Amino acid sequence: MWKEAQINIFYLYLAARSTMITVLAGGTGSAKFVRGLSKIVPTDEITIISNVGDNVELLGLYICPDIDTIMYLFAGLLDQRRGWGVANDTFKALNMLREYGFETWFKLGDKDLATHIQRTFLLKQGKTLSEVTEVLCRSLGVRAKIIPSSNSKIETKILTRKGKIHFQEFWVKRKAKDRVLAVIYEGIEQAEPSPGVIESILEADKIFFSPANPVTSIGPIINVPGVKNALIETKATVVAITPIIGKAPVSGPAGKLMKGLGYDVSPLGVAQIYSDLIDVFVLDTVDARLKSKIEQLGIKCIATSTLMANLVDEKRLAREILEHI
Amino acid sequence: MWKEAQINIFYLYLAARSTMITVLAGGTGSAKFVRGLSKIVPTDEITIISNVGDNVELLGLYICPDIDTIMYLFAGLLDQRRGWGVANDTFKALNMLREYGFETWFKLGDKDLATHIQRTFLLKQGKTLSEVTEVLCRSLGVRAKIIPSSNSKIETKILTRKGKIHFQEFWVKRKAKDRVLAVIYEGIEQAEPSPGVIESILEADKIFFSPANPVTSIGPIINVPGVKNALIETKATVVAITPIIGKAPVSGPAGKLMKGLGYDVSPLGVAQIYSDLIDVFVLDTVDARLKSKIEQLGIKCIATSTLMANLVDEKRLAREILEHI
Repeated sequence: MWKEAQINIFYLYLAARSTMITVLAGGTGSAKFVRGLSKIVPTDEITIISNVGDNVELLGLYICPDIDTIMYLFAGLLDQRRGWGVANDTFKALNMLREYGFETWFKLGDKDLATHIQRTFLLKQGKTLSEVTEVLCRSLGVRAKIIPSSNSKIETKILTRKGKIHFQEFWVKRKAKDRVLAVIYEGIEQAEPSPGVIESILEADKIFFSPANPVTSIGPIINVPGVKNALIETKATVVAITPIIGKAPVSGPAGKLMKGLGYDVSPLGVAQIYSDLIDVFVLDTVDARLKSKIEQLGIKCIATSTLMANLVDEKRLAREILEHI
Repeated sequence: MWKEAQINIFYLYLAARSTMITVLAGGTGSAKFVRGLSKIVPTDEITIISNVGDNVELLGLYICPDIDTIMYLFAGLLDQRRGWGVANDTFKALNMLREYGFETWFKLGDKDLATHIQRTFLLKQGKTLSEVTEVLCRSLGVRAKIIPSSNSKIETKILTRKGKIHFQEFWVKRKAKDRVLAVIYEGIEQAEPSPGVIESILEADKIFFSPANPVTSIGPIINVPGVKNALIETKATVVAITPIIGKAPVSGPAGKLMKGLGYDVSPLGVAQIYSDLIDVFVLDTVDARLKSKIEQLGIKCIATSTLMANLVDEKRLAREILEHI
């Protein structure tokens, strides 16, 4: 009798329990997918595991471009045209920093600067990056959970013929003009997943590899020790959305990086990188001919329009994927 | 023959040598006097010894309000109406910091913030405050020499019935509403004058105590060990300009602070504080009746119009003083 009641309560709990969605995210491309998703499912059911490999310290300020992009998105502050930074921001401080000789290749808006100042201040007080992220998100009214992949320092470095340079220098300063010889996630072997990363993978119903650079956005997340195992163990459906349509990424330097590492710059190349970890791959209809090759990897393949030019596209893509998995 | 030539060269050198002027300075009031002075004498003949007792660390940024006011003045950037900060500055970062819960009683403009970021960054690299000040001034094309009174940490604290609070909290946040029980220059006993402070006093032709708060602007300069001795030893004419007209300071909380410490809130009270160190005291014509009392202290006294409402006033005052000493 008691046991029966307990079982009933358990089933009631399961039915009432909301769908938990976990998204592995980089910057711009991820933000588009996440925005669409957030219009379809309640934001408090969404957990974002954010890339930290792009983080960079400039002028003593600790900057987390990918965390900020997603945080600004949920806070309704993201500059949607640029895909980064705060909408309607100004650059007065940056212009003054130029007077002081600062190389202003990294664009820091005035409002954005406040985030970096506050984050750096809280980190210096001894808080971890995930604690700081939680504080900042709460201040901005963000209801989704944004977790940095790790509180350890992981820095994505690009080996070029000129030597090893930080990803931000490769991409933002030098506009990805150097040939890529290797990509190193510095510090990743010693890194630990931050609190909640493994749980959010194991306990999720659905996990998305958002459309992001597989080398420098998703790579530094899935290579944090323990993350791949959790992705294999989880009962969640794991879905990757292609960041590449045809032969080129929708945004960012993924093509250059994949080519440099010997991958095929195509949805197939991305599916091959993820093949051990995902159940479903979403590619664009223009690449539908690759479906069978991807299915040969043991991955279910969905072909649809993946280009997200506006919120209508973003919502449609998120809804379509949720319906098909 | 040789000796004679050497002596001649020495006299030629003396004749060619420019007048060296050293100014002890706080913020707003000092800036007005210094601006007038800088229109009369070449700026590269002016050395400013700047108060550091007002310096404050906020959000991990090291802020030097008095140094910045004088630096912005010489750089042509000072907001002359407010008497502090950069003209036409905006407050976007500050508004965003408010979102993050920062108490925004201390006004930090966006351009101004760049100064604090760059200063903090350079200090963390191991540079001294005087080295950093030199670097910042050079970047902004400042030709006057601005020297912090000390590279050691000196913090002006005000003892009130609520306890000991930082001068900025007393003045900017609490608008000087607390009764002043004592003023403490924390750290001053162990402080050393920064390089050039003693030399600029000993080698000057004229030294000015600019019209500034004697307790919290000039006080933390002249009480740095070694400075009073240098002021007594120097052959320069030492001139103080009153910050008080009638019974009230032209700007700032000098009245409240002087009263709290038992001084007479009047030009006479200021002259009494400085009596051992100065040769000349400049008071306003409205206070001309105090002349004989001040002269009884062994100080020459000049009465003139000291209110500086605009650049014409500022220049006239500087010229008049230079002519009479």
